[in-house]
Amino acid sequence: MTQFKSVAIVGGTHGNEFTGIYLLKKWQQQIAEVSRPSFNTELVFANPRAHAENKRYCDQDLNRQFSEADLANPTLTGYEQSRAKAINQQLGPKGDARIDFIIDLHTTTSNMGATLLLLQQGEVYNKLAAYVQQQMPEVIVIRDDDHLAQADHRLLATLGKFGVIVEVGPVPQSVLRADVYQQSEQMTQHILDFLELWNKQQLPSLPSDIDAYRYTESLTLPLDDQGNRLGMVHPHVQDSDFNALEPGAPLFQCFDGTVMTYQGESIVYPGFVNEAAYYDNNLALSLHEKVTIKVSE
Amino acid sequence: MTQFKSVAIVGGTHGNEFTGIYLLKKWQQQIAEVSRPSFNTELVFANPRAHAENKRYCDQDLNRQFSEADLANPTLTGYEQSRAKAINQQLGPKGDARIDFIIDLHTTTSNMGATLLLLQQGEVYNKLAAYVQQQMPEVIVIRDDDHLAQADHRLLATLGKFGVIVEVGPVPQSVLRADVYQQSEQMTQHILDFLELWNKQQLPSLPSDIDAYRYTESLTLPLDDQGNRLGMVHPHVQDSDFNALEPGAPLFQCFDGTVMTYQGESIVYPGFVNEAAYYDNNLALSLHEKVTIKVSE
Repeated sequence: MTQFKSVAIVGGTHGNEFTGIYLLKKWQQQIAEVSRPSFNTELVFANPRAHAENKRYCDQDLNRQFSEADLANPTLTGYEQSRAKAINQQLGPKGDARIDFIIDLHTTTSNMGATLLLLQQGEVYNKLAAYVQQQMPEVIVIRDDDHLAQADHRLLATLGKFGVIVEVGPVPQSVLRADVYQQSEQMTQHILDFLELWNKQQLPSLPSDIDAYRYTESLTLPLDDQGNRLGMVHPHVQDSDFNALEPGAPLFQCFDGTVMTYQGESIVYPGFVNEAAYYDNNLALSLHEKVTIKVSE
Repeated sequence: MTQFKSVAIVGGTHGNEFTGIYLLKKWQQQIAEVSRPSFNTELVFANPRAHAENKRYCDQDLNRQFSEADLANPTLTGYEQSRAKAINQQLGPKGDARIDFIIDLHTTTSNMGATLLLLQQGEVYNKLAAYVQQQMPEVIVIRDDDHLAQADHRLLATLGKFGVIVEVGPVPQSVLRADVYQQSEQMTQHILDFLELWNKQQLPSLPSDIDAYRYTESLTLPLDDQGNRLGMVHPHVQDSDFNALEPGAPLFQCFDGTVMTYQGESIVYPGFVNEAAYYDNNLALSLHEKVTIKVSE
């Protein structure tokens, strides 16, 4: 059975998401807080230069650089493309990684609460999600794009044998909020507890299935022919991450006073609503469908 | 009697405060929306380069460059120091300005709601504040550092004969929120209406006095000897802009679990609580006292 011997907690993958970076600072002084008897934990400050510049990234989004093809491509020489190769050397190599489990700490400006992003499927992930939600019922579970082979996944957390993203909001970039800091810390501790209990085969009784969300697509703001924005997220959707969005409901408030409605054919659940990091690609929100994760057969 | 013949609306003084910039884009196409029969209105995009770089500023905070001494100092050659001189040429010169009234559009990540910052005192400001609050009762009025002579004031809006700041939040940097956009637009329109009514001597009956806040000091986060943060704003204060803060109340949540309390001797009212722009100088919040503005004798 899978055993977790090496765990890495990563912070500052995005340089202006302060919460993970400050949690790392704390744990660097008290590594026992994130250690457990059955495994070692390493702390990785992924993008210190972007943090020093108070930016999400310097050249490229670091959290899109971890496909095996890109990691092996010597022509990708930007700062984050190089950091990805260095982190791959430190924690990987991807596909045969030294690190068994990666926890990558992120925040969002969207009203997503405490969210656990699962990047793959399988027994470990399903039980982990059930355990974390049992300890912290407010946690929302997202299954990311699960049609993608791990080798093609571009997220840092896919570098380890297993990996998840802890994503908590709302918090502005460059800000530490006590509530978001505490939720991030609490969720991380529950994940570490789970790994310890798994290793010791002492998991508590878990529900047979849990509710989760599955990412389906992203929606772009309305734009004119030159790529200029014509509107913004409608108040009906703003701050309403994971609330049902029905066909025909208000979606965008245009600057000319008109309202654009959601044109889909079924109820969907928004996430990353009006996330600040997407200012340059005009993404308005992600859409998800509700799914059930079978925890035990 | 004072007449307002030339008005300037300024946006993007801080490059990552999107709301003012998008309002300018809209008004550039429909200048009639911000014009009035008795005056002309000009639109000024103050810091386009910082906006292109998605930053508050490139070299220096543009909104601290407008003292007469700095405007006259040829050794101050940074980008914003140069932009300030250019804007002074365009709208000023400060002390004898072509522009009678400047409205500078800002946003904050703090939960300050719709705030009108008065940078000087006098009949125009007092009646303006009363009028805007009469039209928009949720508006909070702040009197900025009123011991400072206008020549020494460093804010852009002090460049005109008269000037105010429209400050609305909470909204993350680099984000357009429909509610904040609409409040900013609404407050600007009420200010323009006031100037028109003033010019025509058709102001409605106003209350004899209104409540306001007067800035007294800023508080810094707790730091160690090396300048590292020891804590963050306590949840008791987070999002509680303009709520009474009593001596002995929780103020900072330290990373080591301890809580620091407010050590002042009287009740104060926080503002700019945990504003993202102050990440580099570790300002935690501003303090204000409640004051009464006499609108008529």
